[in-house]
Amino acid sequence: MRILDWNKLDEAARRSALARPAAGRRADIIAAARALIDEARVGGGAAIRAQTQRFDGADIALPKVTAAQLNTARDLLDPRDVAAIERAANNVRVFHSAQQLAPLSLETEPGVRCERLVRAITSVGLYVPAGSAPLPSAVIMLAVPARIAGCTTRVLCTPPRADGTANPAILVAAEICGISEIFKIGGAQAIAAMAYGLAGVPKVDKVFGPGNAWVTAAKQLVAADPDGAALDMPAGPSEVLVIADDSARADFVAADLLAQAEHDSLSQAILITADAKFAAAVLAEVQRQATTLSRHEIVGSSLANSRIIVVADLETALQLCNRYAPEHLILEVREPRRWLNSVSNAGSVFLGSWTPEPIGDYCSGVNHVLPTYGYARAYSGLSLSDFTKRITVQELTASGLESLGPTAERLATLEGLDGHARAVRLRLDAISRETC
Amino acid sequence: MRILDWNKLDEAARRSALARPAAGRRADIIAAARALIDEARVGGGAAIRAQTQRFDGADIALPKVTAAQLNTARDLLDPRDVAAIERAANNVRVFHSAQQLAPLSLETEPGVRCERLVRAITSVGLYVPAGSAPLPSAVIMLAVPARIAGCTTRVLCTPPRADGTANPAILVAAEICGISEIFKIGGAQAIAAMAYGLAGVPKVDKVFGPGNAWVTAAKQLVAADPDGAALDMPAGPSEVLVIADDSARADFVAADLLAQAEHDSLSQAILITADAKFAAAVLAEVQRQATTLSRHEIVGSSLANSRIIVVADLETALQLCNRYAPEHLILEVREPRRWLNSVSNAGSVFLGSWTPEPIGDYCSGVNHVLPTYGYARAYSGLSLSDFTKRITVQELTASGLESLGPTAERLATLEGLDGHARAVRLRLDAISRETC
Repeated sequence: MRILDWNKLDEAARRSALARPAAGRRADIIAAARALIDEARVGGGAAIRAQTQRFDGADIALPKVTAAQLNTARDLLDPRDVAAIERAANNVRVFHSAQQLAPLSLETEPGVRCERLVRAITSVGLYVPAGSAPLPSAVIMLAVPARIAGCTTRVLCTPPRADGTANPAILVAAEICGISEIFKIGGAQAIAAMAYGLAGVPKVDKVFGPGNAWVTAAKQLVAADPDGAALDMPAGPSEVLVIADDSARADFVAADLLAQAEHDSLSQAILITADAKFAAAVLAEVQRQATTLSRHEIVGSSLANSRIIVVADLETALQLCNRYAPEHLILEVREPRRWLNSVSNAGSVFLGSWTPEPIGDYCSGVNHVLPTYGYARAYSGLSLSDFTKRITVQELTASGLESLGPTAERLATLEGLDGHARAVRLRLDAISRETC
Repeated sequence: MRILDWNKLDEAARRSALARPAAGRRADIIAAARALIDEARVGGGAAIRAQTQRFDGADIALPKVTAAQLNTARDLLDPRDVAAIERAANNVRVFHSAQQLAPLSLETEPGVRCERLVRAITSVGLYVPAGSAPLPSAVIMLAVPARIAGCTTRVLCTPPRADGTANPAILVAAEICGISEIFKIGGAQAIAAMAYGLAGVPKVDKVFGPGNAWVTAAKQLVAADPDGAALDMPAGPSEVLVIADDSARADFVAADLLAQAEHDSLSQAILITADAKFAAAVLAEVQRQATTLSRHEIVGSSLANSRIIVVADLETALQLCNRYAPEHLILEVREPRRWLNSVSNAGSVFLGSWTPEPIGDYCSGVNHVLPTYGYARAYSGLSLSDFTKRITVQELTASGLESLGPTAERLATLEGLDGHARAVRLRLDAISRETC
């Protein structure tokens, strides 16, 4: 992790200071994911069983998790962990329940009614990885809004461990969050199973959830196939941008940067401050704290992608934030709300010293599935609406059509679409015959 | 167009009855679009000028439309067309303005505040085709919500005609809808210009709008590139599904099917009815009306993809609708609202005999950019929210963190992320020291 002085950088160096680490060899990964999907589609359950054996080292004849397996998982879990999952799920439920769209129905003109209906996506598939860090929190973030939205079929896939069992915390979280069917299938084959309905997994309309590069590639592939399934959002390595002034504590800020850095070797943690002394203090704290983390190898790689940028003032810091568009933005400054109006590109914002980022990862109530890699310029974090569709409705009275119809007819003619014009004209003629 | 009896079809025939026409050779089109984008990125404005010459037959040194060109366009347009554009834009404005999200801020627990901010996507690019049917209505559907959302930069690209001018109705619609910069660039090169900021076009964060297969492929390619731009939604040929009972008029329904069929040779129009006699009457009307349409060649091709399906009852018709997930659903039945609750997959719904589909295409107020090709199972039509991002915010008080922090710490430990746990623990220790 280096300290950079923004004012001394030329434009190329500035671009590089705010650049993300390059992703892996994408074409190879996509080809591999495509091969796995094709194999699963051709071979069905048997192919997926073989893939599970190959990648997870477990031979699983019946991937569907049984009630007995769920009971065992609950017995294995510390009741305090169960309570923590329940409390987190409850807060996520409270915040996402408040996101229900109000009904919308209005007349744009007399006799011209326009409405918006909200419908759950019927069938959703949730993927929860369980490799180096099994993520029961991801279950909460996906399953709670899916249930609130009213998605009828809520399927979860998670890779088995070598002994053939699934991670118990993931199973318990799935049960708490109302998942009805859980399958011990991981990787690209899990995405294929959900998108096409293979190996006893119900076919879903949309797949959600984090995953490694193969899972991400598989989601993109099934989303590009009209017979496949939509995806939640493009994924990239996790990242944080901290803006801090000298009111912040260097040890807190260092811990925040390291919490991000431990995610993945491609993760990125950036601190922007106007205080060069504070920058140096944070760097010293990062170096001190990093050695004591269990995932220090990952931390070492991701710190190489990370930096501290010293700017002239907080206004500049916010400009850099909007240019970078971070997944997580931590504002550890005096009066953090004062700066909120200046934030236009970020996934989720954490205000002040008592709002560490893991609070949002787990239990404040906001969703932790957020746009990474600069996607926050155009994408939002996951919310209730991602589990629904909005359908518009229109209904005209005869007099509404009598008034507005000629406008549609005129525009259809302007576009050279006389079939469109005629569908209106036939009705206008019928109305004028009736009223004669 | 054939009449099929649903009850006499086996499952394979049923699947085929509800299948979309196969798209073209997608891999070739993607490769061609990729080559055009690469050419534009390497060669910049000069390359785009050459591409415009190649595809549109016009040599355009300065693609940006000038104020003088806008004035000429307005002079060329019939004032009744201008009035129709203004009225349509106004209705779209009314319905989309009502889609503003209410502010959301609540405590999920005492001292744990979660909020949702809405921010416009800063820079958006709108593509409006102008080939066989120039679409001023598309300008309205894209530019009006972009302005309501508050997108700062709103750029529009549309291909020039061979004489170097742009379609005047498109220019006038763009002016009415508050587009600030219009460029005479079409096809994949227009998407590249907007996604990467080439040929004097500002770089945008998201591209919107219909287009041919190359435009669609180009949108997918730039969306897959983190340095490119997001896209509005996947596109496919337009389609309609009409559900009618014997209260409907055969000539109206036939006109509705033909209005859809004239869009594109891959368009699909489906009628589902429980009344075999009505089915025959509609088919006869379709054949009678089809010959008199100016786009009868396109209509001929798309009618080959179209069908009339006779089912046992309206409940079955609605089931088929949800399975097909049409872009446009017309309910020409007695008491159409009675059936609305059963609609779970559709882009936009048209109720009753006085709501012809072109009313929604042009001027009722709903957006005409809708999910096609079955995407309505998981996607919604365009709305105000597609021009914004939702950013979540959280802020904890010290006592809020004191209460909830241990839950985050516990879950972090469960996931093996001790850096996460420490970012919380450091603060909990500081709080307990302060309160001692």
